[in-house]
Amino acid sequence: MVDQKVMEKYAELALKVGVNLQKNQALMVNAPIEGADFTRIVARKAYEMGAKDVHINWTDDELTLLKFEHAPDEVIGTFPEWQVKLYDSYAEDGAAVLSIRSTNPDLLQNIDPKRVAMANKAAAEALKNFRKYTMNDKIAWSIISIPSGDWALKIFPDASREEAVERLWDAIVKIVRVDQENPIAAWEKHNETLRKAHEVLNEKKYKKLIFTAPGTDLEIELPEGHIWKGGAAVTESGTVFNPNMPTEEVFTLPHKYGVNGTVSSTKPLNYGGSVIDNFQLTFKDGKVVNFKAEQGEEVLKHLLESDEGAKRLGEVALVPNESPVSQSGLIFYNTLFDENASCHIALGKAYPTNLEGGSSMNEEELDKHGVNDSLVHVDFMIGSDKLDIDGVKADGTKEPVFRSGTWALDI
Amino acid sequence: MVDQKVMEKYAELALKVGVNLQKNQALMVNAPIEGADFTRIVARKAYEMGAKDVHINWTDDELTLLKFEHAPDEVIGTFPEWQVKLYDSYAEDGAAVLSIRSTNPDLLQNIDPKRVAMANKAAAEALKNFRKYTMNDKIAWSIISIPSGDWALKIFPDASREEAVERLWDAIVKIVRVDQENPIAAWEKHNETLRKAHEVLNEKKYKKLIFTAPGTDLEIELPEGHIWKGGAAVTESGTVFNPNMPTEEVFTLPHKYGVNGTVSSTKPLNYGGSVIDNFQLTFKDGKVVNFKAEQGEEVLKHLLESDEGAKRLGEVALVPNESPVSQSGLIFYNTLFDENASCHIALGKAYPTNLEGGSSMNEEELDKHGVNDSLVHVDFMIGSDKLDIDGVKADGTKEPVFRSGTWALDI
Ligand SMILES: [Zn+2]
Ligand SMILES: [Zn+2]
Ligand SMILES: [Zn+2]
Ligand SMILES: [Zn+2]
Repeated sequence: MVDQKVMEKYAELALKVGVNLQKNQALMVNAPIEGADFTRIVARKAYEMGAKDVHINWTDDELTLLKFEHAPDEVIGTFPEWQVKLYDSYAEDGAAVLSIRSTNPDLLQNIDPKRVAMANKAAAEALKNFRKYTMNDKIAWSIISIPSGDWALKIFPDASREEAVERLWDAIVKIVRVDQENPIAAWEKHNETLRKAHEVLNEKKYKKLIFTAPGTDLEIELPEGHIWKGGAAVTESGTVFNPNMPTEEVFTLPHKYGVNGTVSSTKPLNYGGSVIDNFQLTFKDGKVVNFKAEQGEEVLKHLLESDEGAKRLGEVALVPNESPVSQSGLIFYNTLFDENASCHIALGKAYPTNLEGGSSMNEEELDKHGVNDSLVHVDFMIGSDKLDIDGVKADGTKEPVFRSGTWALDI
Repeated sequence: MVDQKVMEKYAELALKVGVNLQKNQALMVNAPIEGADFTRIVARKAYEMGAKDVHINWTDDELTLLKFEHAPDEVIGTFPEWQVKLYDSYAEDGAAVLSIRSTNPDLLQNIDPKRVAMANKAAAEALKNFRKYTMNDKIAWSIISIPSGDWALKIFPDASREEAVERLWDAIVKIVRVDQENPIAAWEKHNETLRKAHEVLNEKKYKKLIFTAPGTDLEIELPEGHIWKGGAAVTESGTVFNPNMPTEEVFTLPHKYGVNGTVSSTKPLNYGGSVIDNFQLTFKDGKVVNFKAEQGEEVLKHLLESDEGAKRLGEVALVPNESPVSQSGLIFYNTLFDENASCHIALGKAYPTNLEGGSSMNEEELDKHGVNDSLVHVDFMIGSDKLDIDGVKADGTKEPVFRSGTWALDI
């Protein structure tokens, strides 16, 4: 098992750098039962930091699977009202929200994708109000991961369960900088690097990005007033927090009507408890007009059919190949990690905070500015050491942004 | 660890005999994280029996203690609305409710009893509507127990943690008849015995019971139309279920204004995470007018001050000394077990179903018939091998009901 001290350091990092918990603030945690030991440490530290209330929403892979296997459609397709009230009441109270993930990427692989899509859609619709809090940075939130046996075995199929968990702990601890003497200082430095990177990009005010790689030839228009972000975010009330740990990306939003060409995935995508792999999407005027996948095509189809916005892009993110996640050489089958090893784009909703004034625009205004809306937001990986990216400036001139998977700009 | 097969048998018993789960019914389970293995078996079996939805409300001693140690009064004293909605929505849907208990009896011993009372009161008030469903048998519900390390060590303080848990599993398995070849058949037979016992008592129509033992001299008037019950209960819609496993009692309600004399406890009472032991209550016209306790007097005081009804009785229950719980020779520090080793009475709310027509009476009518109301219902043990009980009949004649802790009637 992982060292108690390591778990304590990680818990502290998640609370101080992840959600930046304040005195007298409530904390809502989503956590797996298999990770109860770690979660109890998080709760204890949160109270010690002055949290007024720590509530854990416990999840369990086995119970989730049982439900999908047995419950009728009307139960699968209904997101309970009490749970909406639970999420909303913590958000309204200004609570910090920490999600601890460890799900088996293959958990729902034998479940009818229609039922999984039904459940995801019901949840997304029911939590629309709650999502406004997170996607507009009205509250501090953070997603971290800890190993579970099933997940670790997916990454290290030849190891014993115990060994696999230990190796995954080792990998995660390195990637989130918990192996360093002072992880909090390391994160400050890292956030500074990401801040510099997005500042450079913000000055460029590119009209367009052109992605070229084997199987990829894609033009992404960037709307006027787009903002590159990366690393720490700030809530309306001024709390600096880190939505994702790890995070290695700088990202902005594509124009929802301005994406054209074809793009190929470079890593498997874990969506709704299944893996989609080796897939290709073709866009015309922002919309997916063609798609195929070697694995999980049916799941991809359901994802694209979630709603109108699911066929358009909501994010474009740049991650150089030197990222510690990429350096680990592992495929995690977990977007939180894999997206931070690789340039990626997201199907679905864009973050309004990626546009000047976006947080206070209504749906119509957002649409006019090219900001996509959807119930889903799903990142998928398109980066590799063969990826080149060019930036097209206001005057129409082109310049290299990425060459062979890493920065060509001075960043 | 306990055998997987034994857990399966126990889970099946809880579902078939405890809540008597029906096809297409929802099941709400309250369960400790430490008992996740057993709880997952319950969930799987429930789905296999045709449950449409299994929801687990996970509890955790460590998190409960942390909250009481750190959260401010306003959080401790507030029962969240979303949780009320959760309970009510399952009750309204006619769900079965299974509570799996394993709490450390000493969990909250170092917490200010005022704060524990505050939390209990908030919960009781918030769940008033939900309690109508259980206390009037509008839905099927059942309480069972499984060992936890801390609880087991309280009973077997000289054993190792693992050993203690194993010994407590052994004891529970015997007491709930899971060691028998066919536990379900054994419960049918047992329920038949309890049915005969309460039928005998119902024919007697006693006006009064007189309890005599060392430190006890108590007269309990029984209201007109009182009903003795015991063993299986029946919901309005006709589902036979067992509210408690184990259960060895036959019980009815005292007249709320007709209890006089003094009674002494014979076993420790675990209430609100603390132990109250060696206590004595004196009643006048149904109300506690004096009390003392060698241990936990402050906790007892807060219990009695919960509300007006907490000072009056809501249950009188007869359990002979030969009960399997009593035969185990153990003190469980857990009312579910200890009350089934011993005659007991309860402070607080009476079950309206213990009075003819009680389920459909309003508060005023219930009061007029002597049926006590309160936010609390707390059984405490007064039985021993030195307890005699006499029954006073309509014509004023007295007859022995219990002698030396066991039936003097032909039961
Ligand atoms: Zn991203
Ligand atoms: Zn994203
Ligand atoms: Zn009782
Ligand atoms: Zn009782």
